Amino acid sequence: MKENYLIKNETAKEIYDSVKNLPILDYHCHLSAKDIYEDKVFSNIGEMWLGGDHYKWRLMRQAGVDEEYITGNADWRDKFRKYAEVIALSGGNPLYSWSKMELSMYFGIDTPLNGNTADEIFDAAQKYIEENQLSPRKLIQKANVQYIATTDDPADSLEWHQKLKQDKSFSTVVVPAFRPDNLLNIQSPDFADYIKRFGDRNGVLINSMKNLRMVIRMSIDDFYDMGSSFSDVGIEHFPTRVYSREEASDVFFKALNHEPISEQEKDVYIGYLFNFLAGEYKKKNFTMQLHLSAARNVNSVLFNECGRDVGGDCMGNSVDGAALLRYLDTINRKDKLPHTIIYSLNPQMNAQLATICGSFRNVVPGAAWWFCDHKRGIEDVMRSMAETSYFGSFMGMLTDSRSFLSYARHDYFRRILSSLIAEWVDEEDFEMENALQLAYKICYGNVADLVEERVKNHNIRRIIKLYQENY
Amino acid sequence: MKENYLIKNETAKEIYDSVKNLPILDYHCHLSAKDIYEDKVFSNIGEMWLGGDHYKWRLMRQAGVDEEYITGNADWRDKFRKYAEVIALSGGNPLYSWSKMELSMYFGIDTPLNGNTADEIFDAAQKYIEENQLSPRKLIQKANVQYIATTDDPADSLEWHQKLKQDKSFSTVVVPAFRPDNLLNIQSPDFADYIKRFGDRNGVLINSMKNLRMVIRMSIDDFYDMGSSFSDVGIEHFPTRVYSREEASDVFFKALNHEPISEQEKDVYIGYLFNFLAGEYKKKNFTMQLHLSAARNVNSVLFNECGRDVGGDCMGNSVDGAALLRYLDTINRKDKLPHTIIYSLNPQMNAQLATICGSFRNVVPGAAWWFCDHKRGIEDVMRSMAETSYFGSFMGMLTDSRSFLSYARHDYFRRILSSLIAEWVDEEDFEMENALQLAYKICYGNVADLVEERVKNHNIRRIIKLYQENY
Amino acid sequence: MKENYLIKNETAKEIYDSVKNLPILDYHCHLSAKDIYEDKVFSNIGEMWLGGDHYKWRLMRQAGVDEEYITGNADWRDKFRKYAEVIALSGGNPLYSWSKMELSMYFGIDTPLNGNTADEIFDAAQKYIEENQLSPRKLIQKANVQYIATTDDPADSLEWHQKLKQDKSFSTVVVPAFRPDNLLNIQSPDFADYIKRFGDRNGVLINSMKNLRMVIRMSIDDFYDMGSSFSDVGIEHFPTRVYSREEASDVFFKALNHEPISEQEKDVYIGYLFNFLAGEYKKKNFTMQLHLSAARNVNSVLFNECGRDVGGDCMGNSVDGAALLRYLDTINRKDKLPHTIIYSLNPQMNAQLATICGSFRNVVPGAAWWFCDHKRGIEDVMRSMAETSYFGSFMGMLTDSRSFLSYARHDYFRRILSSLIAEWVDEEDFEMENALQLAYKICYGNVADLVEERVKNHNIRRIIKLYQENY
Repeated sequence: MKENYLIKNETAKEIYDSVKNLPILDYHCHLSAKDIYEDKVFSNIGEMWLGGDHYKWRLMRQAGVDEEYITGNADWRDKFRKYAEVIALSGGNPLYSWSKMELSMYFGIDTPLNGNTADEIFDAAQKYIEENQLSPRKLIQKANVQYIATTDDPADSLEWHQKLKQDKSFSTVVVPAFRPDNLLNIQSPDFADYIKRFGDRNGVLINSMKNLRMVIRMSIDDFYDMGSSFSDVGIEHFPTRVYSREEASDVFFKALNHEPISEQEKDVYIGYLFNFLAGEYKKKNFTMQLHLSAARNVNSVLFNECGRDVGGDCMGNSVDGAALLRYLDTINRKDKLPHTIIYSLNPQMNAQLATICGSFRNVVPGAAWWFCDHKRGIEDVMRSMAETSYFGSFMGMLTDSRSFLSYARHDYFRRILSSLIAEWVDEEDFEMENALQLAYKICYGNVADLVEERVKNHNIRRIIKLYQENY
Repeated sequence: MKENYLIKNETAKEIYDSVKNLPILDYHCHLSAKDIYEDKVFSNIGEMWLGGDHYKWRLMRQAGVDEEYITGNADWRDKFRKYAEVIALSGGNPLYSWSKMELSMYFGIDTPLNGNTADEIFDAAQKYIEENQLSPRKLIQKANVQYIATTDDPADSLEWHQKLKQDKSFSTVVVPAFRPDNLLNIQSPDFADYIKRFGDRNGVLINSMKNLRMVIRMSIDDFYDMGSSFSDVGIEHFPTRVYSREEASDVFFKALNHEPISEQEKDVYIGYLFNFLAGEYKKKNFTMQLHLSAARNVNSVLFNECGRDVGGDCMGNSVDGAALLRYLDTINRKDKLPHTIIYSLNPQMNAQLATICGSFRNVVPGAAWWFCDHKRGIEDVMRSMAETSYFGSFMGMLTDSRSFLSYARHDYFRRILSSLIAEWVDEEDFEMENALQLAYKICYGNVADLVEERVKNHNIRRIIKLYQENY
Repeated sequence: MKENYLIKNETAKEIYDSVKNLPILDYHCHLSAKDIYEDKVFSNIGEMWLGGDHYKWRLMRQAGVDEEYITGNADWRDKFRKYAEVIALSGGNPLYSWSKMELSMYFGIDTPLNGNTADEIFDAAQKYIEENQLSPRKLIQKANVQYIATTDDPADSLEWHQKLKQDKSFSTVVVPAFRPDNLLNIQSPDFADYIKRFGDRNGVLINSMKNLRMVIRMSIDDFYDMGSSFSDVGIEHFPTRVYSREEASDVFFKALNHEPISEQEKDVYIGYLFNFLAGEYKKKNFTMQLHLSAARNVNSVLFNECGRDVGGDCMGNSVDGAALLRYLDTINRKDKLPHTIIYSLNPQMNAQLATICGSFRNVVPGAAWWFCDHKRGIEDVMRSMAETSYFGSFMGMLTDSRSFLSYARHDYFRRILSSLIAEWVDEEDFEMENALQLAYKICYGNVADLVEERVKNHNIRRIIKLYQENY
């Protein structure tokens, strides 16, 4: 891969050179702690790339590839060949860039991927995997990852995180993040069973709101003890008003009794619990992440055939800005608003979201998410924040990925960020020394500041924070 | 006109050179089959440009020109002069580009148009028209148009298409496209009369839903027999649920009896018919086009004075993404979803629309439409699709025009497309050979693949598909 | 400051050189007529910059600065130092550009501002203020401002405008603009008191709709007599239908009696009054300005601590395009639609808004407002209009500011405009002579045309309109 890929000029190069070797702090992803712990050598690039990557599945489906070669039983080599044919024409799609970067960064392969080169590349990758015994930890360390926050259910035993914590052979910090979607999904038919399981995991029979609150606190304590600094939620519901514990209790009892929960009742329950959770996060100094505007499983034929997370999701409508404001303001009025990062999958809200966040101390828009994670999308999120807010508070890149190869996305991001900041420097609208400091904060410093203390106290490993002075 | 107009560098030039001479396949326009058949020599450029072009009328109105010179009775030369004065200051408006390109491409005139040059240009064009006996077919062939799909009512006799089909002197394929807006407009006071006319045209008295279905099928068969591959609809209503034939029948009877139809009843009728039509399109392998988010006749004073299609329309609100998803998913669940192209007049939905489409095999976003048909709008539609979907499925340009001069827009599009793809190549994010193949597919190949077979079987003329290898 | 700041090439330079010295006509701002009349010498740059500028306060808050240094009692020098630290990392934020431009333009200081240079710059500015006795009028004249329209309540005595009108020592025209928000805020607890005060100011007891209409007319006459050409409104409510005077009277009586007003009643009252006001504006040839999509005081903790206009506002949702259309069409049907400028704080509506405006003669989108007033935001508003409308009608820049230093924003705008138009010229999509004329109209000519006559008749001062020929 060319040195100057996505680097538009000398100014950008200077900025990029100052951040390209900074360690990666991946504060939101969907990697499996178990896979990291077990650290099995990969079998082939076909499985690595196409075993679980719904981004790629979706692209192949759009290009007319038969499902046999996507989620079906075709051979990995054949699937890889089909993907190669499709990616060759996918100009402008970040998968084109990522595929190229991953081949170069992890396998040292710089041959352009297409139908003609697929077999040669498959074989070369195979050879590389075998010779280097490529495994999750190898990829993580090759990418210079210092910190990983996975995404975990409150009822999770965290056993794999526990094992990783005790494994002195691996220097990357791996901690869980608290994602209470199942606690909030009160209309789900599995809700009562989930609550039972959640209680069991903590040795408590949850039969009241008081108990639920207690167990949530125990669970957050557990996450905290494992070094966690982050929560996350994908439930998109902004309550219409503040509800009392009594109101929420009534609804909770109904749900425990498997009675159907109306939309109004859901509003009560979630409204109450969102407030409670935010307060707990604030106490523990957790960062709260909101992921908004995803529409999931929209193609029910595909969903019935292949299940969830297979490429059948899309951008939902923008959330109602007034409702989001009411939510933030309600929590803030009770002094319960923790450091918060808000992601919108629908980019039409980027500018408005940046100003909504900017109306509260400590609330910031998040990095370009999922369908927005491409050059223009990344730039738009960053420009929207810089234009209307203090860009120095931006938390920078995360992978949000299920694949161990995705750390190339951090390099992709750093190149784009460097070119963006260089634009301001070149327009004589920014000083180079400030540019370097800003790039450092966004690529590393801001997240390092956030997690350094927590990790120090709760893990055998440490983040030896690299200060900008070193660069 | 300069060779490199809108071509940003050598890379773009190489791509553009590979597509600039490809024939035009105009798969959606509002040209009149009668005008093409009769092929009258034009009288003057004033009438050609200002006789029916509401884009130009609107611009003149915004610039303060008296209605007399717009839709009024002023002399064509005077109208042309007024337009020339206005266009001279319309930087950034595609009419500026199109006017320049049309003068150059059809009349060989490269003098900049403004108040001072208007008379000279009017005269030069007049001379050119007379010397060359410029007529619709001359313009079509000069522009190298191989295929035209007009927009036609299901009750249309298709007589002019029939005559064109039999006319061996003209090599461009001209076929109708099926636009059932009048069949769906159940709240219109003319609805019952329209249904009567629609039945008469097919020799059937339509007095039941069963008969309506039968006549629709007969009509689609007729369009099919004329070589049609496309339907289109401008009715923007996404039903709230699936309705049975019985429910729809009740509403249909009320409408036939001239009883007022409520919004809820409209929902039933359209909901039922949308499903039925989609299934019929799928059977016949028609592509279904949806044109969304237009607000029509919004200035009622103008509407009362000048009628519809005079420049009094604008972008409507974005459609509700959830409703559009429900619509597509409902049809798809019944395995009735044909190849579908969706156009949104409101560009704020571009990114979301690309992901909605991308959740279904065979659904793609359409080219930038009407108010979006300018450099930035065209780029935004294409980038939105490329970033989140398989750009190789993009169907490329169409004119959507009522003017025989509008084929310049294909050249405008090809230049913009070439510069966009060149950007990826120059960023080292795309290989040139893939770029050439992609440009070929979008400018010609994808539509040629779609229409080739149909046209071959149903018309005395053929599309001799030009393969990329020739370039 | 470098000559070519934001000027991208020679073409842009040529355009910019043709407009950079044109006088400023600031047709919408929030300057205080009293401050201009009294013309006190400023004390220090800390107070000048941070005494009332909620843009800066907000940025400091986002960067984590303690409220003590924002709206609190800290020393001006300390506040200035804090701001300097924050602005140093605020790349991409217009405050960075404006701060730099203001230092250069008003104080001749070109040292980059940051934590290290803050004291030195504070002192240099202090010295400059004292040596030059910098005061509001000095700044206004240094910036070559020919016309200022302030924003005034209908109940305002206009005494300071009266004094300014009679003061022959100051050549800049300062006139009021009519902002009837308090007349429309019928749900406000202060409404009845306000109406009383409004009546008193005009010597009338307002106890009927008839009287209210009469006093509004008297007030508009007063504004007219003071040379006013503009009204403005920040009430964002588009009535659901047309209401009669009788319906509105009933609601008005209730409000005068301090009875609570429902949302439906508000709809009636505002619906009626909007129509009435528009008609009065049209009679007087006033331009009507609508400022849409602001969400105010969204952080209630901040509001309770610091009050309004302190940096706790943000972009609201886009207005409903259909409602805005109904509003404009309703007024237009009664032939009451005056020249109108519409501003949307939410930029996602820019394209749609440009086409909504373009459907009515004499309605135009306004300049990028508040959170949109940055390079990309300014470009987006202008491109959206140019692409779909007649850009020659654009009214150009205004400051919307409370600070006498903000005239630098006009230079910022002219540089961006020049580079934008240059892009079209360089793409061979625009002629240079048209470019110069267009830039002149937008930077000066269009507003000069609008205000020239009014000012001539009603003020001891005149706008000696500078024609483009002079450049």
